[in-house]
Amino acid sequence: MARLIEIYDTTLRDGAQGEGLSFSLADKLDLTRAIDSLGVHYIEGGWPGSNPKDMAYFEAVNSIQLKNARVVAFGSTRHAKNSASEDPNLKQLIDSRAPIACIVGKSWDVAVREALRVSLDENLDMISSSVEFLKEQVEQVFFDAEHFFDGYNSNYEYAMKALRAAVDAGAQALVLCDTNGGNLPSRIGEVTAQVVKAFPNVTIGIHAHNDSGMAVANSVEAVRAGATQVQGTMNGFGERTGNADLVQVLPNLELKLSKHCIGADRLKRLTEVSRYVHEVANLTSPDSQPFVGRSAFAHKAGLHVSAVSRNTATYEHISPDVVGNHRRVLVSELSGRSNVLARTKANLSSAQVKQVLERIMDLENQGYAFENAEASFDLLVRKTLGNHKPSFELKTFRVITESDWNGRRVSEAMVKLDVAGEEYHTVGEGDQGPVNSIDQALKKALLPVYPVLKDLQLVDYKVHIVNAQAAAAAKVRVVIRSADQKDAWGTVGVSENIIEASCLALVDSFEYMLSKNG
Amino acid sequence: MARLIEIYDTTLRDGAQGEGLSFSLADKLDLTRAIDSLGVHYIEGGWPGSNPKDMAYFEAVNSIQLKNARVVAFGSTRHAKNSASEDPNLKQLIDSRAPIACIVGKSWDVAVREALRVSLDENLDMISSSVEFLKEQVEQVFFDAEHFFDGYNSNYEYAMKALRAAVDAGAQALVLCDTNGGNLPSRIGEVTAQVVKAFPNVTIGIHAHNDSGMAVANSVEAVRAGATQVQGTMNGFGERTGNADLVQVLPNLELKLSKHCIGADRLKRLTEVSRYVHEVANLTSPDSQPFVGRSAFAHKAGLHVSAVSRNTATYEHISPDVVGNHRRVLVSELSGRSNVLARTKANLSSAQVKQVLERIMDLENQGYAFENAEASFDLLVRKTLGNHKPSFELKTFRVITESDWNGRRVSEAMVKLDVAGEEYHTVGEGDQGPVNSIDQALKKALLPVYPVLKDLQLVDYKVHIVNAQAAAAAKVRVVIRSADQKDAWGTVGVSENIIEASCLALVDSFEYMLSKNG
Repeated sequence: MARLIEIYDTTLRDGAQGEGLSFSLADKLDLTRAIDSLGVHYIEGGWPGSNPKDMAYFEAVNSIQLKNARVVAFGSTRHAKNSASEDPNLKQLIDSRAPIACIVGKSWDVAVREALRVSLDENLDMISSSVEFLKEQVEQVFFDAEHFFDGYNSNYEYAMKALRAAVDAGAQALVLCDTNGGNLPSRIGEVTAQVVKAFPNVTIGIHAHNDSGMAVANSVEAVRAGATQVQGTMNGFGERTGNADLVQVLPNLELKLSKHCIGADRLKRLTEVSRYVHEVANLTSPDSQPFVGRSAFAHKAGLHVSAVSRNTATYEHISPDVVGNHRRVLVSELSGRSNVLARTKANLSSAQVKQVLERIMDLENQGYAFENAEASFDLLVRKTLGNHKPSFELKTFRVITESDWNGRRVSEAMVKLDVAGEEYHTVGEGDQGPVNSIDQALKKALLPVYPVLKDLQLVDYKVHIVNAQAAAAAKVRVVIRSADQKDAWGTVGVSENIIEASCLALVDSFEYMLSKNG
Repeated sequence: MARLIEIYDTTLRDGAQGEGLSFSLADKLDLTRAIDSLGVHYIEGGWPGSNPKDMAYFEAVNSIQLKNARVVAFGSTRHAKNSASEDPNLKQLIDSRAPIACIVGKSWDVAVREALRVSLDENLDMISSSVEFLKEQVEQVFFDAEHFFDGYNSNYEYAMKALRAAVDAGAQALVLCDTNGGNLPSRIGEVTAQVVKAFPNVTIGIHAHNDSGMAVANSVEAVRAGATQVQGTMNGFGERTGNADLVQVLPNLELKLSKHCIGADRLKRLTEVSRYVHEVANLTSPDSQPFVGRSAFAHKAGLHVSAVSRNTATYEHISPDVVGNHRRVLVSELSGRSNVLARTKANLSSAQVKQVLERIMDLENQGYAFENAEASFDLLVRKTLGNHKPSFELKTFRVITESDWNGRRVSEAMVKLDVAGEEYHTVGEGDQGPVNSIDQALKKALLPVYPVLKDLQLVDYKVHIVNAQAAAAAKVRVVIRSADQKDAWGTVGVSENIIEASCLALVDSFEYMLSKNG
């Protein structure tokens, strides 16, 4: 059996350095549970010496029973002016009660002189005395060699001496950091192989940053060269261009290199966990994220769609369900007959497909896009073929949003609806603005007639400026994502006015929910 | 001097397959000019046989004088049932009048049998007869070997025979496609090296897709193995997870491998062109995009900021100006004293820094983030220190948005402002919705007093849902990007109501513009 590759997640520490990211304590605990459920081996929870929030995390995480991962506290080697036993930073690692400590130290001669401003020998002593001291207090000590590859390029002998100091003092793992992300896979592989050869009895890890767009490739190349621990973050969060994305590293190691990391069962949860982590971070999952993105197995060109339905290997390097993702067929102006057929559940004749395609192209010229709006597409097909009976008609709306500067702020929407020939005229109020108030007004009018709408929730709202033709005024495309307890669906509206575009998408969402519930 | 690496841009053809992308003819011509200005060698404009828009492009592009690039038309080998001279697809390549034709053909035995459903020999004839026929009509023919790496893995001899057929018929370049993006850099390197050895007098190209997160690494590795043409797209646009991102490939080749592609002067335009292409595509440039992203040289942790100011190599693998990007210092709750000092132009005392930091933390707890809102940050510092004299005060606002279903739709905003002790009460109208109407009303009231505001434009508007504390109601953070003829700046507002949040950001934008103009 292949040797286990240990996965070390640092989303909560190095990942949290990403621009725009800020995790509350509750967020960090939620993320810990989610990342643990994926079966990673280590979760680096924070730097207890750097801020009180990180120390509070370690207190809280001690009362959680994790299924797979061990918690690691991050810190640095002792300060030059302190002895190890009196260094406040090292003390806080112990106070965190994390079973494992990972400490960063210098291995690049230039950084020792210019950043630390101590002698090369003094730095070696800082490494060994810090590891030795921690070793007596915690179960395991990992040594993170900052700028290792730059150090190796600059002064090979000194970089190796820094590793030797850590190993001799008892470090169980040596983590090679490409701190500024400047190295290419070929070089990462060569250097890692040398380190693996020099320290055959120690775990060698790789910690890559993505500044050259190589973090995933560098991590995989290091494993090919003999590294057995990979440090990275969920979704590649991290400062500048981010850390190695474990969401990409994991399937590459498991499926392409046949290395055992978390196993096939847990790999199926990858898409779910990746999206959950984006959600907690308040970020949209990038559609094009390899393996787990919404577009990762989406097929647009008519040619490809027919090929994929014959032989999935043609345009899919792996089967999407292996990572918990799924295949999607897109509708677009580049698409042909085969796409429309694959997308709709209805059984269409050639003439009907043509009719639908013409209607789609017409709407696309107006600025519509149906790729995120499967519910609007579904309604469109039925409307075009005359198979849709509207449940209601929104005849007019009027929204007033008001605020004085002392805090009172509210939107009120007045709507007139036709429901089965009867007119409803009512008003709704929304704290969150105009669309919220229209949603409330529609529900108020429709709930007595269609009680199923009580489960309808708006979960996402996106605005996109579109310029259908250069000559025309700018239009706004609104995509709304709605959900009930079972499903989620997207709808779209386009108009020069954002409120009207929102109304169109909202009405489609209500109609779709009503039609799917008969 | 190192051999030139040819850059082949397929943003307009393979890139346009990306989900959500749709380029008008005018867009395609704008993109052609921008990509040409970067100094790439080839621009693949489209597939004239696939749709009328692509043929219209070739007509239009013939009247444009390009500075660097040659235009390429894309197509496929003849259909099995046609002779080359009677194949409509090949005919359209000639009709496009592009000087170079690139045709895709099969080199994977499995795909020949399952997708084309012809014999292996017939496929070889389809390749050679197509290349031979085109060769007489256009200046150069490139052969795109679809699924080449899968083909090489499955039947090495046949894959090489397919290349041989193209070369013997006169193809000047053999492009090795990793069509489903499933291969790792190590394998791409091995196979490319074999092909380079077998065809020493032909240009060998690489065309990589990013399904394994390896497209950039695979392109670079192929060049290391001897390939001299790289096909890719600007910003990695393309179906599923995209194509190789030329914006990352170019600086890696130029700066890391010291290969000459477009030269140092043009490389300085990389950030500008990358962002322009995102803008035409109506997409936001990802902050974390390597080399060109807004965060690519952004420093958050206090530790790093002080280290970078001492030695930039510490946390920057290259100097940002080499690719036309720049260093940024971020403000966040993780940041310390050194960040605030680096960010503000004011000369602050220790006590003042502390005061500003406390105010930032307070606002961050309420859901504010200043990373994209440098103008609001600047105002915040001045307000906190008592150095800001407001130019006006927005006292109340009220917005009515109205539409009947027959087309009339408009937002009207009524505002009351105090300007230098005098009250202004006016109303503005906006076609694009509530925020637009408030902007108009503010300008109407303020322009007579502050004529400089006539140049103020809102260029971007972003909405983000924030949950400052789990217990509180969801809040909305609005970030507005404004510009005049010289600068652009960001402002932020947070509220439970989206209109109020927008007002706060809008008022900051007006205040900032007025303060920078004295």
